[in-house]
Amino acid sequence: MNIKYPNGKTFKQSDSTSKLTNKKVSYSNRGMTLEEDVSETNEYYLTNGIAVIHKKPTPIQIVKVDYPSRSAAVVREAYFKQPSTTDFNGVYKGKYIDFEAKETKNKTSIPLQNFHPHQIEHMSQVIKQQGICFVIIRFSSLGDVFFIDARHIIKCWKEMDKGGRKSIPYLFIQEVGHVIKLGYQPLLDYLKIIDEHYLND
Amino acid sequence: MNIKYPNGKTFKQSDSTSKLTNKKVSYSNRGMTLEEDVSETNEYYLTNGIAVIHKKPTPIQIVKVDYPSRSAAVVREAYFKQPSTTDFNGVYKGKYIDFEAKETKNKTSIPLQNFHPHQIEHMSQVIKQQGICFVIIRFSSLGDVFFIDARHIIKCWKEMDKGGRKSIPYLFIQEVGHVIKLGYQPLLDYLKIIDEHYLND
Repeated sequence: MNIKYPNGKTFKQSDSTSKLTNKKVSYSNRGMTLEEDVSETNEYYLTNGIAVIHKKPTPIQIVKVDYPSRSAAVVREAYFKQPSTTDFNGVYKGKYIDFEAKETKNKTSIPLQNFHPHQIEHMSQVIKQQGICFVIIRFSSLGDVFFIDARHIIKCWKEMDKGGRKSIPYLFIQEVGHVIKLGYQPLLDYLKIIDEHYLND
Repeated sequence: MNIKYPNGKTFKQSDSTSKLTNKKVSYSNRGMTLEEDVSETNEYYLTNGIAVIHKKPTPIQIVKVDYPSRSAAVVREAYFKQPSTTDFNGVYKGKYIDFEAKETKNKTSIPLQNFHPHQIEHMSQVIKQQGICFVIIRFSSLGDVFFIDARHIIKCWKEMDKGGRKSIPYLFIQEVGHVIKLGYQPLLDYLKIIDEHYLND
């Protein structure tokens, strides 16, 4: 069942974690989506003057808008468009930051169909412009969160195009990625990885 | 009247420039909005591997979505939200680029109400993170386009809050801004100003 919290977020309570009477929510299994965790982390970064990173709004093709008198315009017909870029971008210490957040329930790999061709193309373009581009992947069944440089994702995608495998193995991500440990504030301190692996020269 | 072009853009033909029979469109008065000009410039930058700069989608609060069988989800009720950031951002030579494009028909100043408080706050945050933040302003009646560092806009905004004037004078913009000359490809080469005034050290 879903519980609405005052902050507007929906807490998806799974049967295995807690009963309704049990108010104490297990931290490692709060049922928040990866996107929500990342957005909360970004809010922390913003509030504390650490970085300015936002999620881009979902692109929508608007077909029909009503303008009722005395009230706000109402969109009456619109369709979801496929994003042409990644979901998150912003600035950290003057550097351009660009990433996508994906989660899978699979335990051994993440399907490459999680990424659109446009996103892969966008990642290549960002890297060419010396932006810092990566993907945050959560294996929700395992509870593991990884930071993987977009170059690895692009490489796997290109190999798939040549007949290679259609997913990225967990073991490969473990090998080339960096673990993002779940913290308290911020929840997912991915900028720490940027400090250690991108800005330390 | 409006003419729809194959690229989906609307060409606003003004009575003073040309008649319907006159297919030759005056370059200096093509009737394209500043936003369209900037987007076309960004497309040129992207295609030529110069920079990766996109307009963010308009943020929309979705209330009701229909899922007709066998077809795409249809948004049936949604409202426009006020953007919490500027419209354009991206990466150029590793640097974070962030800006807003505004045009006015006024000839002597641009009203500060063109900017939302959230946008002013966002610009301050970007500058703190050493991002390159600016505004492109077109005085459409005069045909002049300026590149102004966001610091000047923020300063004017703060002065307005203290009882100062509610608009930014053209003469001030002329003094502190940089002229963006209308070109052929790209249309509005604003990165040239960044090369000259931000990256030349």
